[in-house]
Amino acid sequence: MTYDNIPARIEAFRAKMLDAGLQAVILPRTDPHLSEYISDHWHIVRYLSGFSGSAGTMVITTDSALVWTDSRYFLQCAKQIEGTGIILMKDGLPDTPSVTDYLVTTLHKGDTVGINGLLMSIDDTATLASRLRSAGLGLKVDFDPTDSVWPDRPAMPSDKIFVHDEKYSGESASSRIARTLEAVKAAGADSYFTAALDEIAWMLNIRSNDVHCSPVAASFLYVSPEGSTLFVDAAKLTPEVEAHLRSAGVNTRPYGSLTAELPALTSGATVLLATTSASGAIESLLKGHSIVASSPVAMLKAVKNDVQIANVRTSHVRDGVAMVRSLIEIEKAVASGRPLTEIDVAEILESNRRKGDLFYDLSFDSICGFGPNGAIVHYTATPESNTAITKDNLLLIDSGANYLDGTTDITRTIAIGTPTADMRHDFTLVMKGHIAIATAIFPEGTRGAQLDAMARMPLWKEGKSYLHGTGHGVGFFLNCHEGPQSIRLNDTLAPLTPGMLTSNEPGVYLAGRYGIRCENLVLTIPHSETEFGKFYAFETITLCPFDRSLFDTSIMSDEEIRWVDNYHSRVFELLSPSLDEEEKAWLEAATRPLA
Amino acid sequence: MTYDNIPARIEAFRAKMLDAGLQAVILPRTDPHLSEYISDHWHIVRYLSGFSGSAGTMVITTDSALVWTDSRYFLQCAKQIEGTGIILMKDGLPDTPSVTDYLVTTLHKGDTVGINGLLMSIDDTATLASRLRSAGLGLKVDFDPTDSVWPDRPAMPSDKIFVHDEKYSGESASSRIARTLEAVKAAGADSYFTAALDEIAWMLNIRSNDVHCSPVAASFLYVSPEGSTLFVDAAKLTPEVEAHLRSAGVNTRPYGSLTAELPALTSGATVLLATTSASGAIESLLKGHSIVASSPVAMLKAVKNDVQIANVRTSHVRDGVAMVRSLIEIEKAVASGRPLTEIDVAEILESNRRKGDLFYDLSFDSICGFGPNGAIVHYTATPESNTAITKDNLLLIDSGANYLDGTTDITRTIAIGTPTADMRHDFTLVMKGHIAIATAIFPEGTRGAQLDAMARMPLWKEGKSYLHGTGHGVGFFLNCHEGPQSIRLNDTLAPLTPGMLTSNEPGVYLAGRYGIRCENLVLTIPHSETEFGKFYAFETITLCPFDRSLFDTSIMSDEEIRWVDNYHSRVFELLSPSLDEEEKAWLEAATRPLA
Repeated sequence: MTYDNIPARIEAFRAKMLDAGLQAVILPRTDPHLSEYISDHWHIVRYLSGFSGSAGTMVITTDSALVWTDSRYFLQCAKQIEGTGIILMKDGLPDTPSVTDYLVTTLHKGDTVGINGLLMSIDDTATLASRLRSAGLGLKVDFDPTDSVWPDRPAMPSDKIFVHDEKYSGESASSRIARTLEAVKAAGADSYFTAALDEIAWMLNIRSNDVHCSPVAASFLYVSPEGSTLFVDAAKLTPEVEAHLRSAGVNTRPYGSLTAELPALTSGATVLLATTSASGAIESLLKGHSIVASSPVAMLKAVKNDVQIANVRTSHVRDGVAMVRSLIEIEKAVASGRPLTEIDVAEILESNRRKGDLFYDLSFDSICGFGPNGAIVHYTATPESNTAITKDNLLLIDSGANYLDGTTDITRTIAIGTPTADMRHDFTLVMKGHIAIATAIFPEGTRGAQLDAMARMPLWKEGKSYLHGTGHGVGFFLNCHEGPQSIRLNDTLAPLTPGMLTSNEPGVYLAGRYGIRCENLVLTIPHSETEFGKFYAFETITLCPFDRSLFDTSIMSDEEIRWVDNYHSRVFELLSPSLDEEEKAWLEAATRPLA
Repeated sequence: MTYDNIPARIEAFRAKMLDAGLQAVILPRTDPHLSEYISDHWHIVRYLSGFSGSAGTMVITTDSALVWTDSRYFLQCAKQIEGTGIILMKDGLPDTPSVTDYLVTTLHKGDTVGINGLLMSIDDTATLASRLRSAGLGLKVDFDPTDSVWPDRPAMPSDKIFVHDEKYSGESASSRIARTLEAVKAAGADSYFTAALDEIAWMLNIRSNDVHCSPVAASFLYVSPEGSTLFVDAAKLTPEVEAHLRSAGVNTRPYGSLTAELPALTSGATVLLATTSASGAIESLLKGHSIVASSPVAMLKAVKNDVQIANVRTSHVRDGVAMVRSLIEIEKAVASGRPLTEIDVAEILESNRRKGDLFYDLSFDSICGFGPNGAIVHYTATPESNTAITKDNLLLIDSGANYLDGTTDITRTIAIGTPTADMRHDFTLVMKGHIAIATAIFPEGTRGAQLDAMARMPLWKEGKSYLHGTGHGVGFFLNCHEGPQSIRLNDTLAPLTPGMLTSNEPGVYLAGRYGIRCENLVLTIPHSETEFGKFYAFETITLCPFDRSLFDTSIMSDEEIRWVDNYHSRVFELLSPSLDEEEKAWLEAATRPLA
């Protein structure tokens, strides 16, 4: 892919902008579903700038084009926009203005900014509108010339939708719609509109293949006590799916007719909208008969039912077996001296996972970073960066899959050759944080933000840290990242509730040397009830040994050593029945007590 | 104090309310400075209801009178309002509506609610107004018939103001005003108005005696680059204070002329207001030329300068000596079998503190709770509750003083007689949490809410907890509670910054049995700077031994034991030079290593 024609693309876009009487346009990198991962059809920022990172906002003004992105992508973005004349705005640095600050200070009173209002959440749209208004600037919320300036724009994905069987999901679509409507009523509304693809997939027990590594179907859903409507391309439907939807009281309408039909469809109802699942454009459309609150579906979806939990456990055995086989293959390749690269490791992982029952796809592109590449937090090996795995450094492997019966996400850091004392020390600090989360017990109502520092304290005490969150919610045969809960510095106010699946992934990244991350998924479970109320705990769900050669037991407490030994013995117990004798012997050695 | 005439008082108030065309009145328990502690003049809720707790809101409607208060005061309030016909509304219980919800559901469209707008913060007033408006109800914000219905209303306090010497505060009033105005400018405003008494005392280096245990002067302050104005009763001024204020560019005007004069005084300026230091009435008064943001003074005041820090250390030696002498006296009284009550203990503490140099007053009413009384979190012994300190239970002592060179706040829990294994176990859990905070190291930007759970985890792991915060900010010869930082479940977003003084006070309260709390003050200090940024730590400032007989070392780590031993050896080193031989021997025994 070359981007020699970027300036011409921007010029064509700018001409449309000027035709529309606008002095600036904001292009967020998302889709009308406010997705984190998007289909090619919505890669407008990539088309106009060349920048392909997963976080970014482009701004085009009468005389400049700029891309805002965060520290993960500073290097990549600079490289990809080189020579295009686009200015890189480094988000998060003290001297970098926000998009809004930039516009407010560079535009002139009376100027107007354009956006495609479907691509910006309710909250962001409201904040933008209010800031621009105070500065005497206008906002046009329906500016979208993309089709006319992008001749070979990829079509919307058209893969068929399929039904996700209740034996996996544990609940019918009708029941989920009914529970959603109960929550909607409790929030003081009559009905709910959502553009969030994982909410729709969950509510209707449907899946498709519309977003890379995310088994969702591009659609919008309106649910009401009078019946529900799914806006979706007819080409994506099959008779089975149509019957399934009908049985849940869901009609279908074309994807493209949403904005034309939604006002009449919702007339007379008070519609609940959530800023995480509806855009500013939708809120404008329903002005006067909508209320904005937190998503009723996010919380329902995050709390897995007993059938899902049983499936999560089973799929994690399968995923653990694939991990163990991959670790054995990697170890053998290194021992034999055969050339092995980061991309080879990703292929070994994928191939072992594909052999597992109920495998559907990877849940995200594997991250395999050797040595210094492991210190780049969102590294994905490319043909250019691909590094040979030789000796005496750490290999960080973050990977996962979507099975019909669950989503996995696991990170292991393994020593290739002999680890240094520093590596063992740093690995053990990370594990101390990991164990602090794994063994936490906490009262009902506790949010992840309250626990986050416990994962960091062993590192903090030595002046080290990591900038990403300690944990994110994980879907069920769905998105690898989901809300509302998380374990991170900033509070999401969503309490950790029994049935929630969350990652536990502290790490440390030493630029130019190595990266370490240790990630298991943990399920919130009830622990006890006392005169002080209900207490919850985490059950670790992921099954795969940590590299024993990386533990420095001299800085571990007895409890910490015991946790590792107990975890390892559970890993052996649950995985060994699925392994052959040679694999079993390897796992037995890999899981023997630390001391 | 008897309250036989409460119904008549309410009737008189209600008559004024009806005269003014109002169907309900809200009476918050605060003063026009939004103070936590208030002078007798502002005890309107106590006058009208009999309820004397420190948190409460009274509502009077055409046919009812109600008092909302929180769980600390359920019993006390029920007792105090018994027979008055007033309804107790238990704040925080799931079935208790908020004041606003109550009014919205019981009043009729078109009804109007009255408040004295000076007694409600900007945010609370805005929320109330908006909720009432949506429900078709009116709000009158200048209703205050208190003088006319309270014949013997206590006068405003008229104690003289005095200057707090720069040798204690470390900075002139001029410099503090200048730094405040810099922060005001950075926030996009020209000038600042504050009603917060501790902010005024800090900015102007003045103190008085207007609020119980809080050395502040009732006043309002407006600071601007053109000069500043203090609204204060002339009777409180002396020639020295007037000269001091003049030299800092501060004019004085009568306290009562605030609302009449503020609009003209501020005309042409954009005035910064903070919801923590200005009421809704003031915001209305300055409508159109004010902006609302966080208080620029709160952060400046919380970060102590080097002179203050040196003084804090010195005053804590004096306070530690008073504590040690009190502990010896208590121990002797118990050993001798002399009758000793909770009130006796409070008197011992006060008498020893009074003997110290630079003593001004207590910083709050001492809490001395023996056995079950120790489990009542905000217990203060009264002649009715006063309990004899006999044998074999725990005595919880929370006390502190205002010295000219610093404010102290310390809690110790001591065994009277032989402690049970449960007592020692619970005490040690609390200390493990205390030590986790005391030894925390954290990066720049960390908020107290991120650390709070570390103090609770040892208790949580055994299904125990405490409902109060782990720590609050502490003033300098000023309020014992100050913002903006805290260590608690809910995030205040104020980062822990070097120079901040915060309490570290986990506890556990077993109803009907005993209470435990262990409190030291900690100073945030710089720790290190690495490739990951700046890291901070806490220096424990309070100096007094913990009861060695209450530690169960079998559940403590080596690091925890070492922390206690090091702390105790520092206590001995710093306090012993001020003690006589007998006291020194006692302290030596009390601070010898645990193991």
